[in-house]
Amino acid sequence: MTPAELRALVRTVPDFPAKGIQFRDITTLLNHGRGLADSVAALADNVAAHAPDRIVGMEARGFIFGAAVAVHLSLPFVPIRKPGKLPVEALSVDYALEYGTDRLELDAGAIAKGDRIAIVDDLIATGGTALAAAELLRQAGADAVCAGFVIDLPDLGGAAKLEADGVPVSALMQFDGD
Amino acid sequence: MTPAELRALVRTVPDFPAKGIQFRDITTLLNHGRGLADSVAALADNVAAHAPDRIVGMEARGFIFGAAVAVHLSLPFVPIRKPGKLPVEALSVDYALEYGTDRLELDAGAIAKGDRIAIVDDLIATGGTALAAAELLRQAGADAVCAGFVIDLPDLGGAAKLEADGVPVSALMQFDGD
Repeated sequence: MTPAELRALVRTVPDFPAKGIQFRDITTLLNHGRGLADSVAALADNVAAHAPDRIVGMEARGFIFGAAVAVHLSLPFVPIRKPGKLPVEALSVDYALEYGTDRLELDAGAIAKGDRIAIVDDLIATGGTALAAAELLRQAGADAVCAGFVIDLPDLGGAAKLEADGVPVSALMQFDGD
Repeated sequence: MTPAELRALVRTVPDFPAKGIQFRDITTLLNHGRGLADSVAALADNVAAHAPDRIVGMEARGFIFGAAVAVHLSLPFVPIRKPGKLPVEALSVDYALEYGTDRLELDAGAIAKGDRIAIVDDLIATGGTALAAAELLRQAGADAVCAGFVIDLPDLGGAAKLEADGVPVSALMQFDGD
């Protein structure tokens, strides 16, 4: 499918999760067999250009595209999890949300020093989660060589912040705020 | 890889999340490129035998194998989510946990009446989550034609309950309780 056809499979839901927010909903893209497969193939191409050793994805929606991209490239997948889910010693990083903070955790033994890691997620908005993931990878001594997204919301500035943090960003499509 | 080689990639963590429980941890399998790809291919074979129209996976770990199996078969993927995550009207079902209850939600418009649906998850233990997913699919007027897991813990009886509920079950490996 063409990029424009993939973009047309994303549903926009007005006023979710709060009034005035246009929610870009990927579940309608997931629910299209060819759209899903073509999105994963395109994401995998973007990511493979940076020759990663492993793919990471952030709980929960990041698991959907992250693991599928890893399988497409026959690479390992490492889940970055919400607190308390990992059964072993974990590295952790706190990051700010609009109200309060959240925490991400990574199995300290899952990634070796010097590993080249690709971050995969469905959407980048303000970039808080992706920046936290890059920080976790740094704690592990690994190198975040790229971040690949299905959707970029450039008005919210996350992709620019991630690039400024040294992580090259790619996305299959962009939506502006209106 | 052989079934025995895949099984050897699963890590057992004693006393997690509570004393006396042997936690079967798939993250070590995910973190092996060929092990992950071969697991997804084997799961997809098991599921494809039932000719599903769509794959569903339950938040969060069910997203990992569910979406990858869908991509492998070029089928749509429908996420079954925890409460409050879906931006549209959702069907819901409550189910019992060891302490208290939890709820699963499904986009009411994502599945058509009469659709043949395969449930995919990493592990079946007591079966509470999978039985709740089957009930949600029934609410949507769809048919849960099979459930495919990486790991079955037969001592906990979930697979038997799911079969008694009319859903054929397959798993790539079993672990007993010791």
